[in-house]
Amino acid sequence: VPAQPLAFWFDFGSPYSYLAAMRVEGLAAARGVRVDWRPFLLGPVMAALGAPVSPFAAGGPKADYLWHDVARTCARRGLGWTRPSQFPRDAVLAHRVALHAADQPWAGDFCRAVMVRNFVEDREIGSRDAVAVVLASIGQAPDAVLDASTAPGLRARTDEARRLGVFGAPTFVVGGELFWGDDRLDDALVAAAG
Amino acid sequence: VPAQPLAFWFDFGSPYSYLAAMRVEGLAAARGVRVDWRPFLLGPVMAALGAPVSPFAAGGPKADYLWHDVARTCARRGLGWTRPSQFPRDAVLAHRVALHAADQPWAGDFCRAVMVRNFVEDREIGSRDAVAVVLASIGQAPDAVLDASTAPGLRARTDEARRLGVFGAPTFVVGGELFWGDDRLDDALVAAAG
Repeated sequence: VPAQPLAFWFDFGSPYSYLAAMRVEGLAAARGVRVDWRPFLLGPVMAALGAPVSPFAAGGPKADYLWHDVARTCARRGLGWTRPSQFPRDAVLAHRVALHAADQPWAGDFCRAVMVRNFVEDREIGSRDAVAVVLASIGQAPDAVLDASTAPGLRARTDEARRLGVFGAPTFVVGGELFWGDDRLDDALVAAAG
Repeated sequence: VPAQPLAFWFDFGSPYSYLAAMRVEGLAAARGVRVDWRPFLLGPVMAALGAPVSPFAAGGPKADYLWHDVARTCARRGLGWTRPSQFPRDAVLAHRVALHAADQPWAGDFCRAVMVRNFVEDREIGSRDAVAVVLASIGQAPDAVLDASTAPGLRARTDEARRLGVFGAPTFVVGGELFWGDDRLDDALVAAAG
């Protein structure tokens, strides 16, 4: 059975999307699976499902647990981690650039660099300046990329997530089957490798 | 470092608790870790946190996903599975017996047999007759056990779950640290094995 692509649906504000973004490309390559980067806006998707507040932002024992779980998972994997002082961070422009970059060989580099800026460096990722700094750091010409990233495709992508049944991030989709959460990446890759 | 016990907090109505119950004792034994069975009532805990409806019962894409995820996980592990025709099932008496049995060598046998009745055989687990059938099936004298299982400890156990920060089931607790979900069993066992 030939390998199927793995669609990686993620949001730059999502801590578990950070965990998955940092490892998805390496693990997929090891199995001969192509990663399709699928940035979308988790907020509108969750709001439409009656969950307007991220469980990370809702407070209480579950939020405490989730922050702890992400931190200890980063420690175990040797990933940097700083709990963002602002959560969730606005990142619409970064999502637009990721959408534009999805077919480029530097898509993974860009997405990981945005994640590191948010979840390791604890710096804002919403402004044009911030996205330009990230682009320059991976060797891309900021103005050229930003000018090419104005196409209105992000809303359509977010609607597509809803049609697929996505309700959280990260979600991996392989041949129409959903795998929710960084914990399901291995299962998704097994399904994709065929 | 000597091994610490692994406290396994579960509810007989919880599908992911079923997944964990069927493997926790074998995996713990392989690491020299003792399992403390901790039955509690998930419903009151979640209701107190503002989540009165199980995500399995709430409908929508997340519920669809969760049912699918449990089914495919059972298939992968060679576990039986029938989506219960009644959900969640009342199981207060079964929880009381499990509380009584927690210090007995047949605690695991009883808990697994209740889970199989609910999630494989799709039969009710709430009545005295049902619990008696389960007890007889594992070689215990039903009347003697049922008469010994009337002590009022279940509410205290449920309150203890809340104090520990438990917000879902299954939850594993090792030395005060929480590990939520069947997916975290391996991590919990690593922590317990020391």
